[in-house]
Amino acid sequence: MLRINDTICAVATSSGAGAISVIRLSGPQSISICNSFFFGKDLDKVKSHTLHFGTFRKQDQIIDEVVVSVFKNPHSYTGEDVIEVSCHGSVYIQNQILQLFISNGARIANPGEFTLRAFSNGKMDLSQAEAVADLIASESEAAHRVAMHQMRGGFSDELKNLRDELIQFASLIELELDFGEEDVEFADREKFNQLLHKIKSVLKRLIDSFAVGNVMKNGIPVAIIGRPNVGKSTLLNALLNEERAIVSDIAGTTRDTIEDVINLGGIQFRFIDTAGIRETQDVIESIGISKAIEKAKSAKITIFIIDASQELDTQLKELENLKTKGIESPIVIVNKVDLNPSITSEIKNALFISAKNKKGIDAFCNKMLEIANTSNVGHDQTIVSNNRHLQALHQSLENVLKTIEGLNSGISGDFLAMDIRQALYHIGEITGEISTDDLLDNIFSNFCIGK
Amino acid sequence: MLRINDTICAVATSSGAGAISVIRLSGPQSISICNSFFFGKDLDKVKSHTLHFGTFRKQDQIIDEVVVSVFKNPHSYTGEDVIEVSCHGSVYIQNQILQLFISNGARIANPGEFTLRAFSNGKMDLSQAEAVADLIASESEAAHRVAMHQMRGGFSDELKNLRDELIQFASLIELELDFGEEDVEFADREKFNQLLHKIKSVLKRLIDSFAVGNVMKNGIPVAIIGRPNVGKSTLLNALLNEERAIVSDIAGTTRDTIEDVINLGGIQFRFIDTAGIRETQDVIESIGISKAIEKAKSAKITIFIIDASQELDTQLKELENLKTKGIESPIVIVNKVDLNPSITSEIKNALFISAKNKKGIDAFCNKMLEIANTSNVGHDQTIVSNNRHLQALHQSLENVLKTIEGLNSGISGDFLAMDIRQALYHIGEITGEISTDDLLDNIFSNFCIGK
Repeated sequence: MLRINDTICAVATSSGAGAISVIRLSGPQSISICNSFFFGKDLDKVKSHTLHFGTFRKQDQIIDEVVVSVFKNPHSYTGEDVIEVSCHGSVYIQNQILQLFISNGARIANPGEFTLRAFSNGKMDLSQAEAVADLIASESEAAHRVAMHQMRGGFSDELKNLRDELIQFASLIELELDFGEEDVEFADREKFNQLLHKIKSVLKRLIDSFAVGNVMKNGIPVAIIGRPNVGKSTLLNALLNEERAIVSDIAGTTRDTIEDVINLGGIQFRFIDTAGIRETQDVIESIGISKAIEKAKSAKITIFIIDASQELDTQLKELENLKTKGIESPIVIVNKVDLNPSITSEIKNALFISAKNKKGIDAFCNKMLEIANTSNVGHDQTIVSNNRHLQALHQSLENVLKTIEGLNSGISGDFLAMDIRQALYHIGEITGEISTDDLLDNIFSNFCIGK
Repeated sequence: MLRINDTICAVATSSGAGAISVIRLSGPQSISICNSFFFGKDLDKVKSHTLHFGTFRKQDQIIDEVVVSVFKNPHSYTGEDVIEVSCHGSVYIQNQILQLFISNGARIANPGEFTLRAFSNGKMDLSQAEAVADLIASESEAAHRVAMHQMRGGFSDELKNLRDELIQFASLIELELDFGEEDVEFADREKFNQLLHKIKSVLKRLIDSFAVGNVMKNGIPVAIIGRPNVGKSTLLNALLNEERAIVSDIAGTTRDTIEDVINLGGIQFRFIDTAGIRETQDVIESIGISKAIEKAKSAKITIFIIDASQELDTQLKELENLKTKGIESPIVIVNKVDLNPSITSEIKNALFISAKNKKGIDAFCNKMLEIANTSNVGHDQTIVSNNRHLQALHQSLENVLKTIEGLNSGISGDFLAMDIRQALYHIGEITGEISTDDLLDNIFSNFCIGK
C-alpha cells in the first residue's frame, strides 16, 4: 500500500451532485498534471496557498470553469504537492476531470490514502490519522470532542512523554548489559520503579477511559424492556419522530433486538428495543426474552415500560423479577396514561407518558440527559475510544506490570530490557512508530476515498 | 428576493458526509464573520485568492482544523467578498460552522442565491445563470456541451448583437417621431428591412435548435413497441444492466409507459417502454395501446420488437399496421433468437438479439449511436434547450414578423417603434435585461442551495 512516488487523485467531497465539488491531487506530479489542462495561469509559477480561476480543458473543449488551490510541499495536508480543483458539482464533470488526470499519469487514490501519506510524511501519527476518520464519522458533540482531542495530538503527546522516559531507562539498562560482568548500575532502580508506577497509572486511566470513550463514540446503551405491546416501539418512534421501527399490534412482534441511535441534546443514546419479557411457549420468542435480559444487563441504562391500560399487579411483579435477575434500578416508565389517567397516583418514582400522543416525551428526554451528564468528561481529557488502542494499552500495561514484578524480584537486566521493549512496542503501535503494512491497510481501508 | 446587503452562507458541496465539505459565505460581512471564529491569520489583512490553514473555534472549543479561501470583491463568483471554509466533511461540523456564522449575522442562502447575486452584480446574464444549473444537472457529454456553451456566454453574445442593432433602429425611428409633422426619415428603411430579415432568420435558427437542444438535455426519445411479452422490459434491463424495470411473464404487464434514461457512449437516450399493441378486451390495456402509438409518433426513434419464438406472420402484419398508423421506418429488432436461430434468414433489415442472454446488445447500441450521430451538432453552435428561452424567442419572432409586415405596408413610425420595442423586450427577457422578481424567483428557486 505504501507507494508514494506516484500522484493520486480522488473526489474529496461527498458523492453526488452539489453546487461545487472538490477533486484532489497529491504527489510529485500534481502541479504538472493539473497544469496540462488548466488555462488561466501557469501553476508552476504560482506561490503556495494561492487560488486561481480559469478553465479546465480537454483539448479545445471546455470541461468547466474552475478554481484551483495550490499547496506546495511540505505545507499541505499530505506533505506533498497538493492541488484541489473546485469545479461545478456535476458527476459528469467530476468524472471528466478525474479521467484527464488519470490519462496524464495520476491514479485513483485508495481509501484513506491522502491521510496515509500525511502519516508517512510525518504530518501526523497513527492515532491522529485514525482520529480523522472518527472526526468525519462523529455525529454528536461528545464523539466530535473525543475525536478532535485525539486528532490534535492530545493522546499522542501523553503517550510520547511516557515513551521517551521509558526509552531512556531501557537504554541505560541495555548499556549495563554491554558492560557484561562488571556489575555496574547506570539505571537508578528506585527512580525506575517510580516511573513504572507512574506509567502503570496512566495506562490504567487510559484503559478505564474506554468505557466512557466507547459510549461517546457509539452512544450510551439504553435497553428498553417491558411486556409485549406495551409501546416500546412507539416510544422509539416518538423519539425518532419518524416511522422507522416496526410498530404492530400483534403481541410479540419485536423478536430481534433493534438498535436505534438517537441524538438528544448533543448526546447519543443507543436505544436497544428488546423482545417482551412475558412467559411464552414460542421458542424463538423465548430466545428473544433471554437476549433482552442479557442486553439490559450490559446496557448503561435500563428502561422498564408499564402499560397503564393493562392489569397492573403482574407488571409490577415482572419489574420485581427483573431486579432478581440482576437488573437493578431500571427507570420505570408508565405508558398509555391517556387510557388510565388515575394510574399516576398508584405508582411512585415513575415517569408517566403517552408515547402515541407524544405526551411526556420531553420529561423523558430530560431524565435521560440528567443520567448521561453524570458520566460527562471535560474537554481536555484524553478519552480512548478505539478498540485497537485499548488492546495495545492492555498489552502495554501487562508488560509494565511484568517489568515491575521483575524489578522487585531482582531479575537480570536482559529480562528487564526485554519486558520494557515489549511495553514500548505496544505503545508504539498506537502512535505508529511500530506499524506493519497489514495494520496500515486495515486502518486506512476503512476511510472514505478522497480522505 | 433581491436582498443583497446582507451576508449569506450555505454548504456548497453535496449533502452528507465526505472527506471534506465546503461552506460558503458571500456578502459584505463575509470576512469579518469568518474572522471571529478562525484562528491562524487575520483574514482582514490577507490578499484576495489566498488560502489559510487554521482552527475554527467556538469560544475555547476547537470545531475543526480548516482551510479558508478568501476572494475579495469584485473578483469572486458573486462579485462580493466570498469566503469558502474547507472543513472535514462531517455533518456535525458543517452544522456547527453554519450555526456560528448565523449567530454572527449571516443567514442561510436561498436556493441559487449565490448565482442570483452573481447575476445582480453583473458577473453573468440571466441565460448564463440558468446554464449554471443546467451544467450541474448535465449527465451526458451533449447536455454538458450545450450548458457550457450557454454559460460561457455563447447564446448571450448572439442575442446581444441582434439587440444592439435593433435598439439603434428603434432609437432612430423614435427620433423621427420627435420631429412630429416634419416627415423626416432618419432610419434607412431598406437597411432596416435587411436587419429585420437577418434577425428573423437568427431567431428561426435558434427556435429550430430547440428540437436538438431538448433532446440533448433530456435524451433522445426512443419508443419501444411490440406485442406483450416480446421482451421489451428485458431489453431495457439488458441496457440498464440492472433490474430496474418490471419484468414479468404475464402478458400485458407493462400498462403504463415507463421511461428510462440510459447513457450510451456519451449520449442520453430516453427509452419509453410502451404497452403491447395486440388487440385486447382489457379497457385499461387498450388505453395503454393507444398511448403507445401516440408515444411512438412523438419519439425520435421507434423500435419494433418481434418475438422469434412466436408465430411470425401476425407480428409482421402488426409491423405493417404500425406503418399505416403513421409510424414509418421503425427499427426492427428480433428478440429471443436463441429460441429460433433459423429466423435470421427469414427477416431482412433487422437486428437479431437475445435480450435475456445479452446477445446482440452491442450491435443494438451501435445502431442507436449511429442514428443519434446524424443529428449531432458542433461545439460552437448555440443550442436552445430551455423552455423559457424558446417561448421568449417565439414571442420575439412574432413581433419581428409584425414589424416586417408593418414596414412593408408602410404603417406609421409609432406603430413600428412599438413592435420593435416588443421584440426587444422579449429578447431582453432571455438575458435578463428585462426581469421581474417573480421571474427571478421562479428561475433561482430551482437551483440547489449553496449555488
